[in-house]
Amino acid sequence: MKGKMKTAVMLDIGKMGFEEREIPTPKDNEVLVKLEYVGICGSDLHYYESGAIGDFVVKPPFVLGHEPGGTVVEVGKNVTHLKVGDRVALEPGKTCGHCEFCREGKYNLCPDVEFFATPPVDGVFQEYVAHEAGLCFKLPENVSTLEGALIEPLAVGFHAAIQGDAHLGQKAVVMGAGCIGLVSMMALKARGVTEVYVVDIMDKRLEKATELGASGVINGAKEDVVKRIRELTEGKGVDLVIETAGSEITTRQAVQITKKGAAIVLVGYSKSGEITLPMSLALDKELTFKTVFRYRHIYPMAIDAVASGKVNLKGIVTDIFDLDEVQKAMDYSIHNKAEIVKGVIKIC
Amino acid sequence: MKGKMKTAVMLDIGKMGFEEREIPTPKDNEVLVKLEYVGICGSDLHYYESGAIGDFVVKPPFVLGHEPGGTVVEVGKNVTHLKVGDRVALEPGKTCGHCEFCREGKYNLCPDVEFFATPPVDGVFQEYVAHEAGLCFKLPENVSTLEGALIEPLAVGFHAAIQGDAHLGQKAVVMGAGCIGLVSMMALKARGVTEVYVVDIMDKRLEKATELGASGVINGAKEDVVKRIRELTEGKGVDLVIETAGSEITTRQAVQITKKGAAIVLVGYSKSGEITLPMSLALDKELTFKTVFRYRHIYPMAIDAVASGKVNLKGIVTDIFDLDEVQKAMDYSIHNKAEIVKGVIKIC
Amino acid sequence: MKGKMKTAVMLDIGKMGFEEREIPTPKDNEVLVKLEYVGICGSDLHYYESGAIGDFVVKPPFVLGHEPGGTVVEVGKNVTHLKVGDRVALEPGKTCGHCEFCREGKYNLCPDVEFFATPPVDGVFQEYVAHEAGLCFKLPENVSTLEGALIEPLAVGFHAAIQGDAHLGQKAVVMGAGCIGLVSMMALKARGVTEVYVVDIMDKRLEKATELGASGVINGAKEDVVKRIRELTEGKGVDLVIETAGSEITTRQAVQITKKGAAIVLVGYSKSGEITLPMSLALDKELTFKTVFRYRHIYPMAIDAVASGKVNLKGIVTDIFDLDEVQKAMDYSIHNKAEIVKGVIKIC
Amino acid sequence: MKGKMKTAVMLDIGKMGFEEREIPTPKDNEVLVKLEYVGICGSDLHYYESGAIGDFVVKPPFVLGHEPGGTVVEVGKNVTHLKVGDRVALEPGKTCGHCEFCREGKYNLCPDVEFFATPPVDGVFQEYVAHEAGLCFKLPENVSTLEGALIEPLAVGFHAAIQGDAHLGQKAVVMGAGCIGLVSMMALKARGVTEVYVVDIMDKRLEKATELGASGVINGAKEDVVKRIRELTEGKGVDLVIETAGSEITTRQAVQITKKGAAIVLVGYSKSGEITLPMSLALDKELTFKTVFRYRHIYPMAIDAVASGKVNLKGIVTDIFDLDEVQKAMDYSIHNKAEIVKGVIKIC
Repeated sequence: MKGKMKTAVMLDIGKMGFEEREIPTPKDNEVLVKLEYVGICGSDLHYYESGAIGDFVVKPPFVLGHEPGGTVVEVGKNVTHLKVGDRVALEPGKTCGHCEFCREGKYNLCPDVEFFATPPVDGVFQEYVAHEAGLCFKLPENVSTLEGALIEPLAVGFHAAIQGDAHLGQKAVVMGAGCIGLVSMMALKARGVTEVYVVDIMDKRLEKATELGASGVINGAKEDVVKRIRELTEGKGVDLVIETAGSEITTRQAVQITKKGAAIVLVGYSKSGEITLPMSLALDKELTFKTVFRYRHIYPMAIDAVASGKVNLKGIVTDIFDLDEVQKAMDYSIHNKAEIVKGVIKIC
Repeated sequence: MKGKMKTAVMLDIGKMGFEEREIPTPKDNEVLVKLEYVGICGSDLHYYESGAIGDFVVKPPFVLGHEPGGTVVEVGKNVTHLKVGDRVALEPGKTCGHCEFCREGKYNLCPDVEFFATPPVDGVFQEYVAHEAGLCFKLPENVSTLEGALIEPLAVGFHAAIQGDAHLGQKAVVMGAGCIGLVSMMALKARGVTEVYVVDIMDKRLEKATELGASGVINGAKEDVVKRIRELTEGKGVDLVIETAGSEITTRQAVQITKKGAAIVLVGYSKSGEITLPMSLALDKELTFKTVFRYRHIYPMAIDAVASGKVNLKGIVTDIFDLDEVQKAMDYSIHNKAEIVKGVIKIC
Repeated sequence: MKGKMKTAVMLDIGKMGFEEREIPTPKDNEVLVKLEYVGICGSDLHYYESGAIGDFVVKPPFVLGHEPGGTVVEVGKNVTHLKVGDRVALEPGKTCGHCEFCREGKYNLCPDVEFFATPPVDGVFQEYVAHEAGLCFKLPENVSTLEGALIEPLAVGFHAAIQGDAHLGQKAVVMGAGCIGLVSMMALKARGVTEVYVVDIMDKRLEKATELGASGVINGAKEDVVKRIRELTEGKGVDLVIETAGSEITTRQAVQITKKGAAIVLVGYSKSGEITLPMSLALDKELTFKTVFRYRHIYPMAIDAVASGKVNLKGIVTDIFDLDEVQKAMDYSIHNKAEIVKGVIKIC
Repeated sequence: MKGKMKTAVMLDIGKMGFEEREIPTPKDNEVLVKLEYVGICGSDLHYYESGAIGDFVVKPPFVLGHEPGGTVVEVGKNVTHLKVGDRVALEPGKTCGHCEFCREGKYNLCPDVEFFATPPVDGVFQEYVAHEAGLCFKLPENVSTLEGALIEPLAVGFHAAIQGDAHLGQKAVVMGAGCIGLVSMMALKARGVTEVYVVDIMDKRLEKATELGASGVINGAKEDVVKRIRELTEGKGVDLVIETAGSEITTRQAVQITKKGAAIVLVGYSKSGEITLPMSLALDKELTFKTVFRYRHIYPMAIDAVASGKVNLKGIVTDIFDLDEVQKAMDYSIHNKAEIVKGVIKIC
């Protein structure tokens, strides 16, 4: 497909704009996807507000957005499993396939990954993208491209649940009820975890958690989290905590509310990059801390979970913006964190 | 066996003494063991110096010592696997057998454990002890009761190695070359780990590590540990770190010197009980932190490892004291940490 | 509680009768349970028909029945977690607590287990039983004692699902739609398995499977099972098979319908005790075969799964008989296998 | 490098010959290796004797041999980790890198693998081969190219040991003392397994096993294997069996000599492809059967194990033939199975 496409670009800190770019041509092993929805992730907002995350520094003009869903409009000649018209969720990281991590199946640790919207690799707040066909997963009829876009954050939740070996019969707590907290909660429930309690300090988010199936919610600003969990578990503590808030308070609470031998999965990044923990207590309990960096091997399973109704992925969306409103979308998202759970850009 | 026995007791902080006590009578499922060697553990020294570890407070007169080896001199009527004259290593923790942790095989987490020399349960710096026969493990001919006493700290090293899933083909680092560091190093090697580097700041300990089989040693006071490990691993980092030093510096180094996807096993307790870690780096690498509380199911395997020459357990002993010298033994151990690696009380 | 109770006894092959026995007195760590429902298991029928299973030979008078639910009517003095009036499911195997298997948490392999209705240990087709309190699990309000009785077979299904590491995102097949096949299917679904197909040769059982939530059913007498599964999985095969039929045909099919690297869990015993398998094909696919002997650590989780509606346990019951009709119950069960899925004895 | 090379080809069943072929040109990601040693594998002999293994049918002229070691003589332009003069072991299977098995790290199950000497892919009984650089593993100074060639069968032994989770503290039996049996035994010992007994019916092979470090050997033609193992384990049975003989007798013995909860790893293919097992006994013991298809992720670790002296790989070689003698090598190997443990072709 020849022609131009509209591309939203970050021009400077706090400043979005548009460029007209060439519609890309898919390589033999790629497909061209007309994008329909792209989620706005916390990392997009972070780049937009501060220009960098760790060593990854934005050089404008830079394209944000790495949670895409759309429809295949052109197919490279070596692609056999997709055809024009297929609706797809796009896994955003292209890996080398050769390093020790790729070979061992831990491709999320590939040092040479090219990941949408991680500088210097552009993201997908734009009309089209050419992407490796093996990273484009066909959506069944009853899963929309809006849900397809949100498979990306859901994949983080599922990877966290798997890292924690979440399973039927457990009691778990999710710290934080933002997008990642909510998808983690739903991932735990989809894997059969019996009771999942969600902790946050914003009531609106906790309401969302309840609406989406949390067994109970706790407002950490109003209640004593440790005491409440003790009550809810007859003094025993929980088997698993998924920490998505990235705060020291909640991470310390995680150590306190877990049962001996339990696991804590760290997903949220703290602002300073550092966390002080009561490690002697962790040793006394013989706790395990797992951590999460993106995800691996999740897309097909996550799509199945949405298709079969185990996860209400649409339910996390609170705000949809047109691509033309991208500046407003970014600003509004930053200034209304208590109101927005998940914003999405509608491309067309 | 009727009669009296000599028992060394802690009378006050920094003050040892002796009492004459009744030789205990073994119950039907117990054996009476004439003790021959009892190791001096860091926790014994800690109680001796400060009177408490966390919530466990010594009420004098209190018997220290939980690393015993000896010979069976009397056998309860339900005991079938031991007979008078058998030399044994004694696992010091008697568990309830009924709680969820015991039932699931994680008996080291039993909340009702009675563990030698953990207040209010007396230890075994004394001539005899009656102990559950199931916790007394027969030593083969080529393993001495001195080695039998040291199976206890070795068990910690093996449990750490197992928690970290140590195996052939890995490169590992042990932080700290005290008793637990050295037995951890030997445990890693016995499980087949190819290269094990040991880090400490006391040269005498590092010499011991080299003598006992470390692939290399690093004096962290003189060398840049992170840089050295990078060189030794062609920039890749190690697969596994066993942290036994309990210091924030070494725990932070552990995060820095590990390969992506690696595991860190925390064994050492820090003085304050708290540790500040570069957790964002840990998440970027998707590290796992395992912790260690004592051990479980280790004794038979550890005894085998010593019997088959895989572990040179005698080699860690630097000082042997008579029971009569217990005051000197404790004081000397505290004031000569750079000189002593492992002290042992010889009972008779 | 003093007095007599009615006890159904097997007097000979094919012959049931009744005895009046003393109501047992619970020991300090036991409770006395007034039984309300006891399931009829295939092994009960096997003893009734043939007088033995392997080396276990019935010596009449012998009490059958090991799937009990009832209400606590008396409590031993050391029991703290149960009180009179609590409704309970009874786990039927009392283990030694001391052998290597018990200590490692694999108590189902304890060589000294005393298991209801496994000769020479009597079962519970009777009005009362005194049982170890730790093996009596309190039922929540919304779980009946009928369901409590059926926790026992459900536990086998869950153990099979766990042995096969069943989880969200998999496709699985259950061979056999008898009681164990049905509970295995429900266990797989409760653990999140996305698609579960059930194979049997009796239409009535397959209807039951559909009614209870199977994703699809296949009558192996009418359809080519291997071909059907190939179609249902786009030629890929399934991730997991639970074999409960105990036939060579279905076990061989399991090898053929699995994907490379998949797992087969063997639950059903074959008549001859032997099975001939296409093992070279299994090696080419690098399959894993797990086996199941009873279960461990399942009751609390299974009760939760019923209470939370994840498993429709009542749904497997097709026939309820009074204790007085026990002869008819046994005979009818044997002669109407195509009609009965699960029969239960109602005690009072 | 331009020019011709000598290539040994199978011309017909039982008939070898030679062809002059072009020395291949390495692609950008390949290296050209001058071969020095190529092991003769049982599968080579099987193709030579019968013309086929299962669906894999030889079309002459066909090159046998898939266990190569040699020296790099030319390097493709994208290759960075190897240079001319490096001595290497060559992993013989080139995988697709894209299928679900490759992505999950189970590349040995890749359906599109191209494996040396598996029809229609030629093997390497020849002077040179161009091979993917990522599959060529540099040998340290103290590992010869003869040992490099034998890394291939050793990899099977290590994969078997890993499939069985072999570890320190276990007792194990290896069924069969051919090449794969011997490398399995050494792999078990390198991973720390304390006692490894080897069973065969040829004394010469058992002598080899003893020489290479077996804890004990049993001639199954002269002794009652089950009884002997019972004696050697105080009636308990072993934790792990590696079955490499591919016979029904030894596979059945494996079920009988294992402890409850143990694992059996099936490596050997039976002649008929079928095996009849006492499966009810396996269920009573809750055994696990793992199977082995080639190996994955083994080469670096296996080379380390040889370099560090944990495995005496040279020790398995009994016969070395020149490439010119290939016809004799094949015939001799077939007719002297009791004498030959491992034959190798020396290329130049």
